[in-house]
Amino acid sequence: MDPAAKKLALRAINYGLHILTSTNGTEYGAGGVNWISQASFDPPLVMAAVKADSGSAAIIGETGTFAVNVLGADQLDIGKAFFRSTSVEGDQINGHGFEAGPETGAPLLTETAYWFECRVTDTVARGDHTVYVAEVVNAGVRDESVTPLVLRDTGMNYGG
Amino acid sequence: MDPAAKKLALRAINYGLHILTSTNGTEYGAGGVNWISQASFDPPLVMAAVKADSGSAAIIGETGTFAVNVLGADQLDIGKAFFRSTSVEGDQINGHGFEAGPETGAPLLTETAYWFECRVTDTVARGDHTVYVAEVVNAGVRDESVTPLVLRDTGMNYGG
Repeated sequence: MDPAAKKLALRAINYGLHILTSTNGTEYGAGGVNWISQASFDPPLVMAAVKADSGSAAIIGETGTFAVNVLGADQLDIGKAFFRSTSVEGDQINGHGFEAGPETGAPLLTETAYWFECRVTDTVARGDHTVYVAEVVNAGVRDESVTPLVLRDTGMNYGG
Repeated sequence: MDPAAKKLALRAINYGLHILTSTNGTEYGAGGVNWISQASFDPPLVMAAVKADSGSAAIIGETGTFAVNVLGADQLDIGKAFFRSTSVEGDQINGHGFEAGPETGAPLLTETAYWFECRVTDTVARGDHTVYVAEVVNAGVRDESVTPLVLRDTGMNYGG
């Protein structure tokens, strides 16, 4: 396999950008994640790949829950705040307001328009990211006029 | 959970559109699939969710292999040709030219710019779509100037 072709072909997959959050009640995980997709209508499942050695993966492994906050087209700045380590002060996580998800406690960013909470059903720990297949157990929309961000449009990518 | 909120929140995830193909040497599967994402850099893994009762899932279950052809921004017409049952005549599949993938035999569409071949490592058969985690074993680029299609831009969606 030609490594350059592999990189280009895998970067051809289009993604949004999401803040994937978790908590065990004491520690918090929150990171920008693009490797997310729905995986079933009934039951409603998603699949997400999270860096295996991350704090988020440790918390999800412990709690079996996480939340996904979908960034809008003009919210790359929020995404960038979650490309670094997680810091919670009061009702702010990495400088952005949040509230606890009703089902999981995972942080829901109050600035993002769409969110869902997930309970892990299956875990595939094979690569440098762990795949979680998870049932969507709660969801909300703060502003349905918001168009979700397309990662390619930002000039950034994560893949290849 | 509010079903309307669940639908809107899950439809907020952005996707491309891909033709996912497979063959056991006799039968062929080929369908438009958006629920695809990378899942690891090393080894290079992807995750794809394929309708559990489809011919493609039957073939992938048998062979453990498939290929992904990434549609370009102006190739929705090709996508639509794969929203129906699969038909192979000579070197055409659903009316579009293909060649056999070198590693898997799965059809590679000659009109699409980016492709990769995959070997399944893990299967999660939980919902109405089956999740395949698969290693990318071969990849190619026919035209790196092509911008991949964003499903939302077509006005179509599959999710919710």
